[in-house]
Amino acid sequence: MPRIVKQKVEFEGRIEEREVVLEGDDLPVWPADARFTIVGAPVTRVDGRERVGGTARYTTDQYPAGMLHGVILRSPHAHARIAGLDVSKAERLPGVRAVLSHLNAPKIRWFNGASWLFDPELRYVGDEVAAVIAEDAAAARDALDLIEVEYEVLPHVLDAAAAIRPGAVLVHPTGNILGGAPERYERGNVEPALARAEVTVALTVQTPDQLHHSMETHGSVAEWSGDRLTLWDSTQHIFGVRRQVAVALGIPMDRVRVLSPFSGGGFGSKNAAGKYSVIAALAARQTQRPVRVIFSRIEESQAAGKRPRSIQKIRLGARRDGTLTAIDYWGLSNVGAYRAFPSPLSGPPKELYACPNVRTDTASVFTHTGPAAAFRAPGYLEATVALECAVEALADRLGLDPLEVRLRNYAEGDQVLERPYSSKFLREAYRLGARSIGWERRTATPAQVVRDGTRRGFGMASQIWGGSGSPPAYAEIRFNVDGTAEVRIGTQDIGTGAKTALTQIAAEVLTVPVDRVRLALGDTDFPYSPLSAGSQTIASCGPAVRMAAEEARRHLIDAAASVLEAAPEDIRLEAGHLTVAGVPDRRISVAELTGRMGNFTVTGRGFRGANPNDVTIRTWGAQFAEVEVDTETGAVTVLKVAAAHDVGRVINPLQYASQIHGGVIQGLGLALTEDHVTDPETGNVLDLGFDAYAVPRLPMIPEIDALAVGIPDPIANNLGVKGVGEPPIIPTPAAIANAVANALGVRITDLPITPMKVLRALGRLE
Amino acid sequence: MPRIVKQKVEFEGRIEEREVVLEGDDLPVWPADARFTIVGAPVTRVDGRERVGGTARYTTDQYPAGMLHGVILRSPHAHARIAGLDVSKAERLPGVRAVLSHLNAPKIRWFNGASWLFDPELRYVGDEVAAVIAEDAAAARDALDLIEVEYEVLPHVLDAAAAIRPGAVLVHPTGNILGGAPERYERGNVEPALARAEVTVALTVQTPDQLHHSMETHGSVAEWSGDRLTLWDSTQHIFGVRRQVAVALGIPMDRVRVLSPFSGGGFGSKNAAGKYSVIAALAARQTQRPVRVIFSRIEESQAAGKRPRSIQKIRLGARRDGTLTAIDYWGLSNVGAYRAFPSPLSGPPKELYACPNVRTDTASVFTHTGPAAAFRAPGYLEATVALECAVEALADRLGLDPLEVRLRNYAEGDQVLERPYSSKFLREAYRLGARSIGWERRTATPAQVVRDGTRRGFGMASQIWGGSGSPPAYAEIRFNVDGTAEVRIGTQDIGTGAKTALTQIAAEVLTVPVDRVRLALGDTDFPYSPLSAGSQTIASCGPAVRMAAEEARRHLIDAAASVLEAAPEDIRLEAGHLTVAGVPDRRISVAELTGRMGNFTVTGRGFRGANPNDVTIRTWGAQFAEVEVDTETGAVTVLKVAAAHDVGRVINPLQYASQIHGGVIQGLGLALTEDHVTDPETGNVLDLGFDAYAVPRLPMIPEIDALAVGIPDPIANNLGVKGVGEPPIIPTPAAIANAVANALGVRITDLPITPMKVLRALGRLE
Repeated sequence: MPRIVKQKVEFEGRIEEREVVLEGDDLPVWPADARFTIVGAPVTRVDGRERVGGTARYTTDQYPAGMLHGVILRSPHAHARIAGLDVSKAERLPGVRAVLSHLNAPKIRWFNGASWLFDPELRYVGDEVAAVIAEDAAAARDALDLIEVEYEVLPHVLDAAAAIRPGAVLVHPTGNILGGAPERYERGNVEPALARAEVTVALTVQTPDQLHHSMETHGSVAEWSGDRLTLWDSTQHIFGVRRQVAVALGIPMDRVRVLSPFSGGGFGSKNAAGKYSVIAALAARQTQRPVRVIFSRIEESQAAGKRPRSIQKIRLGARRDGTLTAIDYWGLSNVGAYRAFPSPLSGPPKELYACPNVRTDTASVFTHTGPAAAFRAPGYLEATVALECAVEALADRLGLDPLEVRLRNYAEGDQVLERPYSSKFLREAYRLGARSIGWERRTATPAQVVRDGTRRGFGMASQIWGGSGSPPAYAEIRFNVDGTAEVRIGTQDIGTGAKTALTQIAAEVLTVPVDRVRLALGDTDFPYSPLSAGSQTIASCGPAVRMAAEEARRHLIDAAASVLEAAPEDIRLEAGHLTVAGVPDRRISVAELTGRMGNFTVTGRGFRGANPNDVTIRTWGAQFAEVEVDTETGAVTVLKVAAAHDVGRVINPLQYASQIHGGVIQGLGLALTEDHVTDPETGNVLDLGFDAYAVPRLPMIPEIDALAVGIPDPIANNLGVKGVGEPPIIPTPAAIANAVANALGVRITDLPITPMKVLRALGRLE
Repeated sequence: MPRIVKQKVEFEGRIEEREVVLEGDDLPVWPADARFTIVGAPVTRVDGRERVGGTARYTTDQYPAGMLHGVILRSPHAHARIAGLDVSKAERLPGVRAVLSHLNAPKIRWFNGASWLFDPELRYVGDEVAAVIAEDAAAARDALDLIEVEYEVLPHVLDAAAAIRPGAVLVHPTGNILGGAPERYERGNVEPALARAEVTVALTVQTPDQLHHSMETHGSVAEWSGDRLTLWDSTQHIFGVRRQVAVALGIPMDRVRVLSPFSGGGFGSKNAAGKYSVIAALAARQTQRPVRVIFSRIEESQAAGKRPRSIQKIRLGARRDGTLTAIDYWGLSNVGAYRAFPSPLSGPPKELYACPNVRTDTASVFTHTGPAAAFRAPGYLEATVALECAVEALADRLGLDPLEVRLRNYAEGDQVLERPYSSKFLREAYRLGARSIGWERRTATPAQVVRDGTRRGFGMASQIWGGSGSPPAYAEIRFNVDGTAEVRIGTQDIGTGAKTALTQIAAEVLTVPVDRVRLALGDTDFPYSPLSAGSQTIASCGPAVRMAAEEARRHLIDAAASVLEAAPEDIRLEAGHLTVAGVPDRRISVAELTGRMGNFTVTGRGFRGANPNDVTIRTWGAQFAEVEVDTETGAVTVLKVAAAHDVGRVINPLQYASQIHGGVIQGLGLALTEDHVTDPETGNVLDLGFDAYAVPRLPMIPEIDALAVGIPDPIANNLGVKGVGEPPIIPTPAAIANAVANALGVRITDLPITPMKVLRALGRLE
């Protein structure tokens, strides 16, 4: 059933909106009261044994025969020009097969044209200078020391505020603000509203650089066969990497196959091809050998991306009853030397509350530090700290319950946007979370002293994020003669459990056990699927898998009708058997039927079309934190986080909880311990590797209550799912910061909230 | 459009005919006068550079990291029982990782249940005793010598005639005739017709064992990832191997992926999984390391299969004008120790001539020699030697032109079968071939002396073979954003050029150059396709590729209609551009359109359904040979072979010619030089490897005129193709034997026609 949609498409650098005819997906949304046996069940990971047992082969586990090892020489300076480069000694070292640099590599545009694959101007400590390809990693590393580089050291700027001052050193000739100028959004009229407000609060908030530190570092293994490249890449978007690499090499896309059957985390830092991907491909073509370029943990700290640190200022105006009348928000994001897209800091201030007067001024600022990358809820997390701390400060000022203030300003979609929300069950999330944490135990600040030197506090924060998926996505399904089914889809499971959830969807439709359905992904030979980021994998791919399975189901029923000599409308598919309605002994199992059909294969193909264009699709949530603060040591202990989110239908409650746990823990890290530290003089990264950089350790993990609203979205897509990837990280830092403020009666708005900062806030340190 | 077909299907060992609903392929057949630009053009191999340049990766080129090497210990006796087996010394040899034998390997049925993967009873010299898996091939071979086997030697039978005598040693307990008893076919009443015939001729004909000697030997490389097996296999049927291996290992089919992106020939010997495939898989599972088991050239001679030698007796009855009144045919095929299906010797005698009285008695006989395998036109080649030599002997006896005799007995389908032929252009083949060879130069035997001691002769033979393909087959096509298209189909290119021909079909429909379409095959992750044997690949897969491309074409047109703001019926796709009819400047290229559609992918899916059930589909042909025989040395020189075949539409004349050349050369080998020699006492193979076994060498290759009738079949499938794999080998030996008889005036019917046999026939040797 073809239909026409408007689609923003990119062609030769232009973005155009065009109407394009698409196949349609006319499946009705699974109703809220549908009775399922597999969807919604706590199915354990279909690839859990592989992942835990060590048999899963990640990119870093690929060792094609004859593989060479590539390592990268990185800039020791925050800003320099390569004035001289002599690689001849390195080239002569036994075992070295190639040295790539700007002297001999093709000139390939990088970072949206802002730089080159090998750029003689170096813009951060860690920027790529050259790559050595050798028989083994030790020889390659030895050769790095033999490369002679003459650096012309240039002045640098590391701080975002400094970088936007007139006369600042320029990181790029187009200026230090990404896109040339700050972005402004305004509705209503903020200044007079603030002037007239019965009460105002103002906060300055800072959030740190946060490193993704995926368990599998970034990297690629490249192998050519004839004019065709196979690239194993630890990525969140195999099709994107394929396109980027094809364009970089100037070859047709059909010559590139990208594989990523297993991937050890990305969190947004693997949304695109890395320089390593193209370096591996170029080196493999040049040497006619497979080439591996995989980051060390140190490189992962230097050059793999980060959540950019932010400086934010927020002013709220309100009536005495807590009704917001104005939000004035200003935010800078220090995106380092390279970044394609600005941080979407303005999202929460624009949408979270039904405030008539809102202004946001935001900018992403280039500095001579490591490049920023998307990190789980980019911008939204940072801005939520500012907004939700300010809201709670407002409640405190007014002596109101912060939850009451939030409910008073609850926004329907058409109050803040042109289009209504497809679903918004944030009230339910507030209710579930408040009940779990025991919100009624919260007292006005400063909160109660629980024992000598220890204060307890409660805080909360709201969450908003997209949930629309990123169509299109395609899937196909095929039965084998023995009744096993295979689903193929070109998505990737970056550790989120997408493989398991998608398998459940297919198994549910086909009424067969999960272990009779094998879902294969991570291969650009499979049907197109989008980026696994933005919480969009299941909302993109799930509906396509369902549609493919439904088509296969109809195919099974038609075939069974013939074999059982009945009309298709009289055939029921239940529990892996096809039965003639009312004639219980006229039945055949799926496996017997596919066996009888022989090589006449039961197939199905599914498509996830464009989103409905009359609604806005968002996820919602609220988290409530209970903390204890040791006023002697400044140590903050998070006792519990109650996390309640409206992400539409929950396909798998175990995986839902797993995402909640992961998000809360990562958010807790940002709130309390993580900060990527750069020497303010030299721009050197000071906390390389896990030794120095403080991701949360096990004893820090609180009780986490993962609560799901669980109401299917009635419009978003045929499953009623939205997405749970980013939501749980978004409110955690704000909730913890609010709980600390509640405990102490002083507000610390410079995250992470380290013991030193606590003691300083309490006046116990200078 | 679902339709119902009767389909013979196998399920749990039973073969049943059931009606099953299928998707339909309602595309009209491409008309005979269609104007094509790519189909029918002499496109060079799309993978020629890879194959010739050494970058194509065949099974034998797979070296996954950590791979172990497996070698097989083979029986030195034609018939023995393993009375004792001690592998302990072998196991202790450094580098040895496993030794598999009947003592420890799972009991896996083999050869249709007639034997086991490791059978303690050994039935030919070369039968598998044990396998050693070691770090390198040298260690594995050394370990073979350390395996201590006590053989209880048993009596054996090597000769087919001896094996069917009462009291013969039994190769299998069920008897020495495959299937238990000879097969008989009869129409009319042969004995009285022979008795009443105005003239009769009788011939006894023998054809030799012929080895396939594929350039890539048989073998597999197995690698497990978790519970999932990847098997590279040099095979003609990736899906068949997958199923066989899954059944052998007792695991679901979805756990096995078989890859064969390049394969170096098969000729029928790689139609199924080998023991090597399962041994590699078992050993890899046991050692948790990839395992390679690839035949040496010696093993290729011993254990990879052969065309079985035949003994045939034929009597023809005819009227004086050459009209056939009776054909009485008897044939034995010596299929060695193992064979699943009998040789179809009866095909040509039943169908080639409109004779009212035909009887065939055929049997495939087990002996203690190497197993037979299908070999390019199994049975048909052998029986054609008997039938076509007899027809020419009859013509000589009657003083008639052999071509006239054949035309007098020309058979329409309903004269010899229940159903008419979909097409039969054998008369055209006769005409083309006769003109090319200059058939009018033929004189009655003995033919003219051209120079002292040299006689020249002419001979011909007819060809019949199936052409129906082997549905189903499935294909899919997908456009990339840059306008390149990718076709995926689970067939295999065993060297025939299937990849090129299928690419041409897609490119023709899509009106884009061949290099903008990449066809991927040889992977069971792609859509199901059948066995590449029986000349059926293009007739099976081609129509599915066309259908997929037609669907993609419609998809392009619909999208273009939207972008160009016109009705789909007004859009033309020509030369890679979509144009609004009558508005030449309203146009967009395929690449621009797919670019605009972004990730909304143009796709198509194709299906090759069952054959029409009211016709019989056959290919036809005739070959004419001109030879010189040196009466002093007995040497036969083939000067020219004119080969004219009706195989339906020719997709690629270069590849058509290539198949003709290959078939004629292989047929010439069987006619003149090839004979797989077994010691009649011990059953030892005496001509191991290429040194001893005489495939034709370059100086022996005659001029070969590859002539195509080229008329599309109007019914067979949507392309009008039949298939050219086997046809060209079928008539070559008979045509050469007839030409030698024409030259000498004496008929040699024991092939190969060696110089010794020529001299003996001329009475110059005892």
